Amino acid sequence: MLKSMLEPRSIAVIGASRTPGKIGYVILKNIIGYGYKGKIYPINPNAEEIMGLKAYPSVLNVPGDVDVAVIAIPAQEVPRAMEECGKKGVKVAVVITSGFSEVGNVELEEKIIKIAREYGVRILGPNIFGYAYTPSNINATFGPLEVEKGNIALISQSGALGIALMGWTIMNEIGLSALFSVGNMADIDVAELSELLADDPNTKVIAIYLEGIKPGRGREFVETMTRVTEKKPVVVIKAGRTSRGMKAVASHTGSLAGSDALYEAAFKQAGVIRAYDVEEMFDIARAFAQQPLPRGENTIIITNGGGVGVLATDAAELSGVKLVEPSQQLMNAFKQAMPWFGSPKNPVDLTGQAVVDNYIKALKIAIESPEIDNIVILYCRTAILDPRDLAKAIVEFYSENKVNKPTVASFVGGQDTYDAMRYLNRNGIPSYPSPERAINALSKMLWYKRFLEKRTSKR
Amino acid sequence: MLKSMLEPRSIAVIGASRTPGKIGYVILKNIIGYGYKGKIYPINPNAEEIMGLKAYPSVLNVPGDVDVAVIAIPAQEVPRAMEECGKKGVKVAVVITSGFSEVGNVELEEKIIKIAREYGVRILGPNIFGYAYTPSNINATFGPLEVEKGNIALISQSGALGIALMGWTIMNEIGLSALFSVGNMADIDVAELSELLADDPNTKVIAIYLEGIKPGRGREFVETMTRVTEKKPVVVIKAGRTSRGMKAVASHTGSLAGSDALYEAAFKQAGVIRAYDVEEMFDIARAFAQQPLPRGENTIIITNGGGVGVLATDAAELSGVKLVEPSQQLMNAFKQAMPWFGSPKNPVDLTGQAVVDNYIKALKIAIESPEIDNIVILYCRTAILDPRDLAKAIVEFYSENKVNKPTVASFVGGQDTYDAMRYLNRNGIPSYPSPERAINALSKMLWYKRFLEKRTSKR
Repeated sequence: MLKSMLEPRSIAVIGASRTPGKIGYVILKNIIGYGYKGKIYPINPNAEEIMGLKAYPSVLNVPGDVDVAVIAIPAQEVPRAMEECGKKGVKVAVVITSGFSEVGNVELEEKIIKIAREYGVRILGPNIFGYAYTPSNINATFGPLEVEKGNIALISQSGALGIALMGWTIMNEIGLSALFSVGNMADIDVAELSELLADDPNTKVIAIYLEGIKPGRGREFVETMTRVTEKKPVVVIKAGRTSRGMKAVASHTGSLAGSDALYEAAFKQAGVIRAYDVEEMFDIARAFAQQPLPRGENTIIITNGGGVGVLATDAAELSGVKLVEPSQQLMNAFKQAMPWFGSPKNPVDLTGQAVVDNYIKALKIAIESPEIDNIVILYCRTAILDPRDLAKAIVEFYSENKVNKPTVASFVGGQDTYDAMRYLNRNGIPSYPSPERAINALSKMLWYKRFLEKRTSKR
Repeated sequence: MLKSMLEPRSIAVIGASRTPGKIGYVILKNIIGYGYKGKIYPINPNAEEIMGLKAYPSVLNVPGDVDVAVIAIPAQEVPRAMEECGKKGVKVAVVITSGFSEVGNVELEEKIIKIAREYGVRILGPNIFGYAYTPSNINATFGPLEVEKGNIALISQSGALGIALMGWTIMNEIGLSALFSVGNMADIDVAELSELLADDPNTKVIAIYLEGIKPGRGREFVETMTRVTEKKPVVVIKAGRTSRGMKAVASHTGSLAGSDALYEAAFKQAGVIRAYDVEEMFDIARAFAQQPLPRGENTIIITNGGGVGVLATDAAELSGVKLVEPSQQLMNAFKQAMPWFGSPKNPVDLTGQAVVDNYIKALKIAIESPEIDNIVILYCRTAILDPRDLAKAIVEFYSENKVNKPTVASFVGGQDTYDAMRYLNRNGIPSYPSPERAINALSKMLWYKRFLEKRTSKR
């Protein structure tokens, strides 16, 4: 049923508008512009045609089936539209309209829920900016037209933040499979969407901005998310961690934030990874999206700078990333990859004299050694090694050797270093502006691996 | 004496080279290229002229005084050069050369220290990439030519990281007054440089990457830094926090990292702010560099998005930033600045409908209200408010009204939002990609304010 949202045969836009700037205009424009291939039906009683598409006075007048109806009309008119969606056999009503429980109008919200239930229509929203599912070329939001394609699914309980993140993900080249604004969660909630995405072959990791779940549904949330994390990693930012933050949540979405300790326990039990800001959420999601799951704990750091090596070492120790003690044999091998004054211990310090060849030799040793499960590549800008050359060589090496050891990278330097990191990110090696952020992402992958193992061993 | 490094009348480069790529070539090229106005003397026994400047076989042959000598010759030749510097009356020898105590050659290092002491020459290094002081157009490093000018002084105990950060600060438009590589700290150490910079009118805040101080100098370090923080804020990253990190430090610079708890206590006592990664260090330094010190605790958050408001509220609560409870009168005033469905509480939520005018009205109220000491401006990308327009309006407002209430900002969105933040940063409003980072920077300013107050009250 919900799956209709991912691959609908047709989408109606109730409240489609010819007036630029109107929400019903932007949504229709985005659906058309992003290249959706199914049937699109603008619904507007005062128009014959909108953006070259035939318009209908009501969804009931549409000749074919309607799988998804996006509703962007004044709140008081939503019940009638919902009634019509029910009669038409619409599967999911995406209710953009605000002015429901979030402003105290609980009655109106209950009214549309009742109608929807009667007819078996599912509701996303109300009070949302829409949704997107990139594999089907659907952008049914009033946010920006472009959505970077990829395999991270994002669910946001905040509309404004969700829209802002659309631009943010494009700028940071973070590819999305899906984007859901959940708003008041009158019907479909975060857990149910997560379950939908757990079975979506185009989604590899689920990232969630959560303000609160509905009262009394804590247990269900844990149960559902436990099933989800069995299939896919989930990274959550839970806003409203403090008592004052909870008050702000209450005045924002009207959710009951609930005690943070309860959420913390629920996340741990369900195997949900917690992030503490938006950057961290995507740092972690990117690692899961691009890399295989770790198969072991033993991690090696390969660097050309002692300082970043130390910072990474500290971060590893503090976040439970186990740095392997290389055997004498392994150290001897690393010694061959570096100038005489380098260090073959962990961090493997190729020194500031390192060139591409040193890195590739060290990486070759690392991927071949059974002592090593995970790899952290660090680089500090030096005059003798252009970071873009290094990035290209790394990508080539990983692709040629089909490396399946989880790898994260951090390059520190100026614009060319930043460009090199973008290249790495674009080609499957998650890269971060500081060693600490790289290690943090890896530590969460390891945490998730351990969680899955513990679960299996319990059976 | 040390002050000669900031405003030397002349600089000699011992080991100046005509061969591109050589360290003695790059340093001379940078000194000339960055526009140093004093006398420059290349020292090279095998050259008549280098880069259009007359070269001398020894520093002793230079006709005028030599304030600073940058030494980039093989390690075993450094003692003789140091001897000549002593005879010539050089004030500071900047010893780039490596191959001393950091590789176990303690004897050679002690030899040059002894010679320098005999003649009263001070040593920066050895084993460093040089130093820069932008107000005098000095870039005596073998890093990149460009150094962004500003009022943050950076001291790095890691050479590779320091050079990498040169590019990083340019890319992030973080302006530096000074940059010192300290290497083995045979003579001049981090504390003494901090004291020098505490009296430098062009430096507003000191940022330090520290691996460890010399054994037995802990007490002196605390005493010196206590004097420094009386004049200026100091932000430190201390690498080698964990036992494994300490081992990495030992094999990197050979410093004894010492127990992290001891450092933590020392920093607290001396009023030194601790950062935990490079991004955080500059986040904090930027706030101090651009904003006045807080005069009170009461902080207001102004936002157009509930979600980022909640995230900022959580961060404030967790980091000891006191969010003011606005009086009824103040709330009434804020109500006038927003649509009817906005919230005049703290966070002040101007709603997604907010335009420039709403922000400016709210800011006007905030700067005029005696209830408010500090301001946090948040923005989520919306279709109706271009972040660049908002940034321009904010900068204009702050400059016209000579606002002296500490302000930090966070704008969330895509490329145009990022551009808006760069504009804010460039014009004195420190801006951060996440609300949490903005609040964190403010929290450290407040911590420093409290530290100064406590110190004063103790007298």
